[in-house]
Amino acid sequence: MMIKKFPNNPLITPAMVKPSAPDLEVMCAFNAGATVRNGETLLLVRVAERPIPQQGYVSTAIMDPEDPTAYRTLRIRRKDPKLDFSDPRVFTYDGVLYLTSISHLRLARSRDGRHFTVDEKPAMRPELPTETYGIEDPRITFIDGWYYINYSAISLQGVTTALARTRNFAKFERLGTMFAPDNKDIALFPERIRKRYYCFHRPSMKHIGAPSMWLASSDNLLDWGHHRLILGPRPGKWDSERVGCGAQPLKTPDGWLTIYHASDEKTRYQAGAVLLDLKEPWRVLARSRRPVLSPDRPYENEGLMPGVVFHNGLADRGDGIVDLYYGAADTTVCGATMKVGEVLASLKRDR
Amino acid sequence: MMIKKFPNNPLITPAMVKPSAPDLEVMCAFNAGATVRNGETLLLVRVAERPIPQQGYVSTAIMDPEDPTAYRTLRIRRKDPKLDFSDPRVFTYDGVLYLTSISHLRLARSRDGRHFTVDEKPAMRPELPTETYGIEDPRITFIDGWYYINYSAISLQGVTTALARTRNFAKFERLGTMFAPDNKDIALFPERIRKRYYCFHRPSMKHIGAPSMWLASSDNLLDWGHHRLILGPRPGKWDSERVGCGAQPLKTPDGWLTIYHASDEKTRYQAGAVLLDLKEPWRVLARSRRPVLSPDRPYENEGLMPGVVFHNGLADRGDGIVDLYYGAADTTVCGATMKVGEVLASLKRDR
Repeated sequence: MMIKKFPNNPLITPAMVKPSAPDLEVMCAFNAGATVRNGETLLLVRVAERPIPQQGYVSTAIMDPEDPTAYRTLRIRRKDPKLDFSDPRVFTYDGVLYLTSISHLRLARSRDGRHFTVDEKPAMRPELPTETYGIEDPRITFIDGWYYINYSAISLQGVTTALARTRNFAKFERLGTMFAPDNKDIALFPERIRKRYYCFHRPSMKHIGAPSMWLASSDNLLDWGHHRLILGPRPGKWDSERVGCGAQPLKTPDGWLTIYHASDEKTRYQAGAVLLDLKEPWRVLARSRRPVLSPDRPYENEGLMPGVVFHNGLADRGDGIVDLYYGAADTTVCGATMKVGEVLASLKRDR
Repeated sequence: MMIKKFPNNPLITPAMVKPSAPDLEVMCAFNAGATVRNGETLLLVRVAERPIPQQGYVSTAIMDPEDPTAYRTLRIRRKDPKLDFSDPRVFTYDGVLYLTSISHLRLARSRDGRHFTVDEKPAMRPELPTETYGIEDPRITFIDGWYYINYSAISLQGVTTALARTRNFAKFERLGTMFAPDNKDIALFPERIRKRYYCFHRPSMKHIGAPSMWLASSDNLLDWGHHRLILGPRPGKWDSERVGCGAQPLKTPDGWLTIYHASDEKTRYQAGAVLLDLKEPWRVLARSRRPVLSPDRPYENEGLMPGVVFHNGLADRGDGIVDLYYGAADTTVCGATMKVGEVLASLKRDR
């Protein structure tokens, strides 16, 4: 097996995470960005919380735009005719869309990459008008002495893509919105290519086009251009409906290796591998025919969104074996080891 | 009347435009970008064409990706059960979305701004993989000796926003895609503000958020960042559903004046005025309470999309009276004069 799941999965469950406020409960701890710092594996875990449920009510929390350190709670009778609650992740009340939870980012640390202690308090919590519905699905890329963190920022303005950075994971500096909404699934390349920074992004088109991986480039990580479609869904296959990047791309002698997520028409999320040219990263050299990671364990098929593995964190210790982190069923954090050489060999066969 | 429609509207009709190929017919000539060059008013008119209709069939033309100078024609029996044809602008066949026409940009010239001669051949036609379904709704902004033209480029990749430039309207240089899809309704500011270029854009959100005017800025017109929501729809009013910029913003002593388009829930498109701070253009100083331009003439209420006025071209001769050009019913090009001082005075009252 070129990618092997950890025997002690799930690594982090909601029960291991202390709520950020006494009246909230942790629904899900999942979709963690990852990096290595001073020999330690660091995860920024997406922690989704909601008000402690009351029977007969749907409730959620929203960042208070007047006071970002506080939440506003919305509680609606399940029988209220103005309520539409057909998706476990969102509901509509009186024509306005709400998420059923609000997410923040929480730090977890490990010496071996497999056993984690979770911080008691959030590392980053919603703070801005673009973040009132939460901050989600971080990726971490180390560039020139900084850990850059990009994440989805959700509000009634749309699904925007935000960039922040830190040197120490204690103090975080917000740098702004990277792309126009709706966009998500950004991953920054760890180094410049011919003087330009690069990242993947995944626009969600309303009118025409399938959710696909796009590439953009930048002089300064803040202004982005040269947008190109790189990888789209493949009708009739396991990645038929939507594709988006996983964690930060990995530099290998053969090219940039990226594990991407994809779903089919049944919203089954699996992962595939794609290899891009080192100097011209818009050139796809190879793409895996079959998934490299699939939801086939009980902990991946029970939870908020059964049948989902979603990888957005990667810890590279430089020895050819990389730890991948992924959300399972939108509920827990799981891990797997990847032998880079074996994935590259399989891509050569699939080419 | 601060904005007065021309008595000889419509200025350009489909009948005045020669098809770009013998087997095509011109359905609509509308939504023209505008500028003044050497005393002449120049329009870049969006010309929408389709194959000459055959009874019992729906047909459209698509740019041939193998040979951009040629079209591929798609012809489908109206009775075909795989056809869904509920919108006059688009249809779906076998799960794939098509437009009912393909657009290019055609130059029209006038000495007085009211009587136009239309070129025999396209100025810009679809050429790129992002343009196979056509190029639409240009805006023209004169910056540092170049006429910059931005337009919507439609293909199965999505609705992208493309930038080109010309010095002479004979030779056009394509510069690339400005924003990730779906996005449209871009208007570049005519000068830098504190060293940065600015533009409006209008992302079309899939999941959450209302179609609104956003502002972005750039060092080089190609890489864009610092995205901010500027102006959204106002529930219950005439601009309740969607707003997007009109033509290039006009510099006035009181601020940047922009005529924006907006629709209500009945898809009635009107125009309003908004005034933005000269040095901090993300600051809205005033917004008109009532529309400044409405579809109230027969030529605005008959055609492909009745009840639509859509302004995206402006000719400023520097005397305080500006010619506005707008598409009527998505079918013809119309014009109006605007007394800038009167619009500013009305905005002061509405503040």
